[in-house]
Amino acid sequence: MSLAKILPKRKGQLTRNAILDAALDLSCRNGLEGLTIGLLAERMQMSKSGVFAHFGSREDLQIAVIHEYHRRFQSEVFAPSILEERGLPRLKGMLKRWLERHTREIASGCIYISGAVEYDDRPGVIRDELVKMVMAWNAALLRAAKQAVECEHLLPGTDCEQLTFEARALVLALHHDARFLKESDAVERTERALNNLIAVHTAKAKPRAKVVRRTKSSSAHHHHPQP
Amino acid sequence: MSLAKILPKRKGQLTRNAILDAALDLSCRNGLEGLTIGLLAERMQMSKSGVFAHFGSREDLQIAVIHEYHRRFQSEVFAPSILEERGLPRLKGMLKRWLERHTREIASGCIYISGAVEYDDRPGVIRDELVKMVMAWNAALLRAAKQAVECEHLLPGTDCEQLTFEARALVLALHHDARFLKESDAVERTERALNNLIAVHTAKAKPRAKVVRRTKSSSAHHHHPQP
Repeated sequence: MSLAKILPKRKGQLTRNAILDAALDLSCRNGLEGLTIGLLAERMQMSKSGVFAHFGSREDLQIAVIHEYHRRFQSEVFAPSILEERGLPRLKGMLKRWLERHTREIASGCIYISGAVEYDDRPGVIRDELVKMVMAWNAALLRAAKQAVECEHLLPGTDCEQLTFEARALVLALHHDARFLKESDAVERTERALNNLIAVHTAKAKPRAKVVRRTKSSSAHHHHPQP
Repeated sequence: MSLAKILPKRKGQLTRNAILDAALDLSCRNGLEGLTIGLLAERMQMSKSGVFAHFGSREDLQIAVIHEYHRRFQSEVFAPSILEERGLPRLKGMLKRWLERHTREIASGCIYISGAVEYDDRPGVIRDELVKMVMAWNAALLRAAKQAVECEHLLPGTDCEQLTFEARALVLALHHDARFLKESDAVERTERALNNLIAVHTAKAKPRAKVVRRTKSSSAHHHHPQP
């Protein structure tokens, strides 16, 4: 099917998507500040005004890139996890898919992480938009952790803010060690630490069952669903 | 004492130091890639050629900035810690001073962390130099952790690579949350997690003493030196 046969509106949409794809790729590699209309036009073999026709300004383009990145992040990491059983299975699903996404991103980079450094000292709409997206994910993780406590899958006293802070720290270290230091074992170390972090907070038995100390620990194994 | 009274060589050194100071400050705020001879000349109220007279090229200047940053890092964090008792006191001293330095750097930024993102995809001498400095610190931390195991302050089976990976992760998260997300409790969370990380690996008693399980734990308290 040639482009000419597609309705003009649809064709415009396809071109816009192709530009956005290229812009996302460039932003992951060079940072959002490294994204220029000139570079993008060159990559797309279009004129600068052709790019401007789809994105009013460089800033609009940068914001479109952030939203597209977020859309993909949501559909890869968040959406499939929210379908999992509430509590530990969902929390583990989110962490697992997050780790998988970052493992794939070792080659290309993550605009949430590079953006955090690019914009930590640079106020404006790009920074605000990035913070909003990162905060949304942090809140989703925190919500999942709190639900896991409510479901009695995690221990009742678990400090969920602390737990998710530590989980996020590990993902930052994965990105740092794998991309900057080229450490080959960064994924494995991150996975081990995340598993351990969850394990130390995992309830061994339902608190409601009033388990007496020194009960046979093997009896507790089926008390919470395993993902 | 006027500058004119100082020997010319000394005066040149003072100017060079002042330029380096300004360059370091600019690099922390705008990144090493944001450091230009033009910006620096403006800040110093000098001509560009005046700056070039002290640093042959922009790249030489960037490398001088990295070395100066490293020198300060070493003298603030590493040097006082190495004077502490080998083992846990030294490891804890390194982590404590590292945390303190990052707490001060919340306002200004850290070129090791911003540089990691700026240069993860950009090969060259600046990247190589940065990696060398970061690796030197990682190696120092790892050495201190291994010595703490040798001194029987940390548990014999401690995976020191994993422990230092997790400690470094927390410092990355501190930088991220405090500077980008403006989270007010990032320092406190980092400190809590670092203390906990060390605590879970801390030996409760000398392994050589062949402590039988269910021994009164209070008897173990004075077995290792407290920093």
